Amino acid sequence: MTQSPSGQIAVATDSFLALAAALLGPRGLTQDPDLLTPWLTDWRARYTGRALALAAPASAAELSALVKLCAAHGVAIVPQGGNSGMSGGATPDASGTSLLVSLRRLNSIGAVDTDNRQITCGAGVVLHDLHEAAASAGLRFPLTLGGKGVATVGGLISTNAGGTQVLRHGTMRAQVAGIEAVLADGSLYSALVPLKKDNRGFDLKQLLIGSEGTLGIVTAARLRLVPALAERAVVWAGVPSLQAARALLLHCEKAVGEALEGFEVLPQACLDTVLAYLPSARAPLEHKHGWHALIEVVADASGAATLSERVETMLASAFAAGLLEDATIAANEAQAEAFWSLRESVAPAERAQGPAMQHDISVPVAAMPDFVDAAVADIEARFPGTRALAFGHLGDGNVHFHVLAPEGVGAGIERGAWEEAEGKAISRAVHDLVTHWGGSISAEHGIGQMKRDELARLGDPVALAMLRAVKAALDPLGLLNPGKLLSPN
Amino acid sequence: MTQSPSGQIAVATDSFLALAAALLGPRGLTQDPDLLTPWLTDWRARYTGRALALAAPASAAELSALVKLCAAHGVAIVPQGGNSGMSGGATPDASGTSLLVSLRRLNSIGAVDTDNRQITCGAGVVLHDLHEAAASAGLRFPLTLGGKGVATVGGLISTNAGGTQVLRHGTMRAQVAGIEAVLADGSLYSALVPLKKDNRGFDLKQLLIGSEGTLGIVTAARLRLVPALAERAVVWAGVPSLQAARALLLHCEKAVGEALEGFEVLPQACLDTVLAYLPSARAPLEHKHGWHALIEVVADASGAATLSERVETMLASAFAAGLLEDATIAANEAQAEAFWSLRESVAPAERAQGPAMQHDISVPVAAMPDFVDAAVADIEARFPGTRALAFGHLGDGNVHFHVLAPEGVGAGIERGAWEEAEGKAISRAVHDLVTHWGGSISAEHGIGQMKRDELARLGDPVALAMLRAVKAALDPLGLLNPGKLLSPN
Repeated sequence: MTQSPSGQIAVATDSFLALAAALLGPRGLTQDPDLLTPWLTDWRARYTGRALALAAPASAAELSALVKLCAAHGVAIVPQGGNSGMSGGATPDASGTSLLVSLRRLNSIGAVDTDNRQITCGAGVVLHDLHEAAASAGLRFPLTLGGKGVATVGGLISTNAGGTQVLRHGTMRAQVAGIEAVLADGSLYSALVPLKKDNRGFDLKQLLIGSEGTLGIVTAARLRLVPALAERAVVWAGVPSLQAARALLLHCEKAVGEALEGFEVLPQACLDTVLAYLPSARAPLEHKHGWHALIEVVADASGAATLSERVETMLASAFAAGLLEDATIAANEAQAEAFWSLRESVAPAERAQGPAMQHDISVPVAAMPDFVDAAVADIEARFPGTRALAFGHLGDGNVHFHVLAPEGVGAGIERGAWEEAEGKAISRAVHDLVTHWGGSISAEHGIGQMKRDELARLGDPVALAMLRAVKAALDPLGLLNPGKLLSPN
Repeated sequence: MTQSPSGQIAVATDSFLALAAALLGPRGLTQDPDLLTPWLTDWRARYTGRALALAAPASAAELSALVKLCAAHGVAIVPQGGNSGMSGGATPDASGTSLLVSLRRLNSIGAVDTDNRQITCGAGVVLHDLHEAAASAGLRFPLTLGGKGVATVGGLISTNAGGTQVLRHGTMRAQVAGIEAVLADGSLYSALVPLKKDNRGFDLKQLLIGSEGTLGIVTAARLRLVPALAERAVVWAGVPSLQAARALLLHCEKAVGEALEGFEVLPQACLDTVLAYLPSARAPLEHKHGWHALIEVVADASGAATLSERVETMLASAFAAGLLEDATIAANEAQAEAFWSLRESVAPAERAQGPAMQHDISVPVAAMPDFVDAAVADIEARFPGTRALAFGHLGDGNVHFHVLAPEGVGAGIERGAWEEAEGKAISRAVHDLVTHWGGSISAEHGIGQMKRDELARLGDPVALAMLRAVKAALDPLGLLNPGKLLSPN
């Protein structure tokens, strides 16, 4: 009796799933649509895929055995943490032939090593829990972002996450002292023992960080901690322009040095949108200003006593130099939280306004003000009726550049259709501009599936060739997160 | 008329050299033994090789064309900067078939970007000149080492150099904001535009840093600068043991935080050797101590006023807690320099004592004191007559572990013979111990040719397979610095 090719595939798949089920046990593998479905769509609901099954190994050793099984059967793997990525990097494609592998069960948190200020975490540890663990030892993990309640350590590492503290502490790349990952052939790369100096060849840890699960699956990490904050001063300042905000940033860097932990900017229009969206919120300053800067200056125990004096001196000299129009220091923690809440509400408030194309871009810090002016004018002129807004991490040269659909889209005109047609043209235009200015089409959200074709279109061919060569070398069968970051071979 | 195979090779070589000479011009290529010979031996005179010729391209574009020519003719390349490497990584092998490529003509230094605190340098810029350029703009390049008068930026990047300021500022890897390199096929990878956030795929810059010229040839870099030092306090402290030194280090980190820039240790025996070697030098403390710590605490303009008070408080509380036996703060810059000169003279003073096997190793910082005690005892017991000494960067977990030959070696007994026989056995034993303690056989000097076989013997097979796969992917013909870091295929 012969079988059709599709029948042979089905038999092979059944055999793979039976072996995977035996390996992982009932908690470790499911095909139940009720359990699978929530993880097949990315959290911004842009991408929905299908998967053979959802695997959730309980240990790096189980994952290692599972990947060996996948390699033997030619089954592709889509690794997933908290499923809070911004670029569809953890969502499988529509073929339904990939295995979705959740790292969420690898959620053990080691004891805080207070002497070395480090902690070892499983890939499935949620960022918020990492914050708590560090705080319980009087220390701090110096990276945070909106999705901290769901984002996992493994996902943060795989996407080299950023956030609002990069100005002082760097991205996730700077926080990783050691790493453990399962490679495409199932072997376990273990480099969790932290060595401050280690020159045994080029840096494989850094190669895995930011590789979006295409070179290996992160299972654990040794992370750096910093002293807990003893005190912070949160300032809201009004400035006439983004150029002025940049001058103020340089002034603050000179005045307080590394104590400057955050410098976020938003235009008046963004603040107005937030105030309309949060009925109980109040504008921090009395008058309107072209741009607003949210500035955080911090101190650990050794500098706490002098912090407020240093911040007041910084602001007084800024006033005297004509670098700001108005400013206020949060009087207490509640007000500091309220200031930050305004900043963190920009994205949801903008979303509530209707469809928008969002771009996570960076240019050299010094060029950012001119870039934003030029890009806003250019996009609004080329796509009549749209409104372009930039806000974000001025100190990192990273703005979130949102282009709101013309009025009527989302109400009368169909939303998805606009995004598919004019929206995509807008994004291409924004990416062209960024590339022209020497910037990046992905500052902190990664490439995933969303920007894969744009990277192929606009990336430096030499860099793309290197990325492809390394990918092919470390994952010759193309089984790790296929279709993400780079086009399949 | 037919030619012998060697004749064919000679003709092919002549043809390659003629093309290279035409490409590079008379200043760019030489076979003159007087000009070549000084660069064929590493600066510690451990390795001597031969080369087809010495090429010195005047630009990245010339190098790119040269590498394409090499690729077409199958000619291997040994890149070289200041030829001050510690592991023979820039010395060609004995075959004489490689082209030695000096980057020293790529020595342009761009204007200091004071706003962004960055500078762009050619690979051939000497570290000392980089220091001067930064200082002329009121800034500082925060990495230094003994060979600063000859070591070049390209070499420092390719070996991920360390030094005495890694405790606060990190290794070379942390100083590079952008990079430009010629790859094995001659293509130019240019990522000099500094973006603080850029997640367009995994980090190719970090892949090139520390790759010892085996993946690409660095031609230029954008480097980070830090504020100039306004003030420093240099402390010499006596402690009973390395364990006590470690406790003092933790105390200092708690007391002054990131102002702690250096924490070096040496045993009394090392200090005695230095004092004998430098007749005009004086011991900083009145009495002998088991170990000595050299501590540097720094401040930029914003913290200068309070520095001496903070250091005095730090030392007073250390005394009160029984963490040190004696300590003195350098009274002026001259004394501070004198303290550092004692530390920097350890290596030459040890060398003057006679043959020694030197090891640049690291273990986790917390394990360092116990490791040193165990390793000294173990090595001296297994190799009677030897004396083992550790000194160096306690704050980085990086010690230089020297094993001095028994008396008579170098005088009666032939020096080279001892190094070849017992010396090599000693090094293998030290590397076995380091590996057993979870450490690195190369903390900051790289692998080069010196430790290549030891890396192959002791490295994690999974890591080695990754290194080899990436090397094969990016240099499929094996033409970039063959025989360094990894064994030739």
